Amino acid sequence: MTYTVQVKVMPLKELLDPQGKAVMGGLRSLGMNNVSDVRIGKNITLQVEAASPEQARQIAEEASKKLLANPVMEYFEISVN
Amino acid sequence: MTYTVQVKVMPLKELLDPQGKAVMGGLRSLGMNNVSDVRIGKNITLQVEAASPEQARQIAEEASKKLLANPVMEYFEISVN
Repeated sequence: MTYTVQVKVMPLKELLDPQGKAVMGGLRSLGMNNVSDVRIGKNITLQVEAASPEQARQIAEEASKKLLANPVMEYFEISVN
Repeated sequence: MTYTVQVKVMPLKELLDPQGKAVMGGLRSLGMNNVSDVRIGKNITLQVEAASPEQARQIAEEASKKLLANPVMEYFEISVN
């Protein structure tokens, strides 16, 4: 069966996120002062061919560790639909 | 109150996603042949100061329309926690 898997890759909380800071600056200059702490990461959707949702998650985890996320700077979360 | 809002910005389904194609090529060359149709977008988290979850969503929607997403190439989904 084919499962749709979402992998969310975000910069580690301990690290600065210059892209997020820049976007927050942009929002401020548009007059949106009620927004703070903007962080920007990636959202990746995959179609995974697997026997079960658990196996699909495992495959996505392997893909994340090998290629999609850099563990030095990022963490990832997987959800299977 | 402060709400954590997630904005998912993805390339429109009708459009090619060269970044996703490249990542799929990478996964294939790592021997992961059970993964297909990789699409890559952004995941943005914001802290929004608002009176209610509805207002927080509204603010995030305004931010998405004005700055975070390009409607010509992308669509966005908002979730408020």
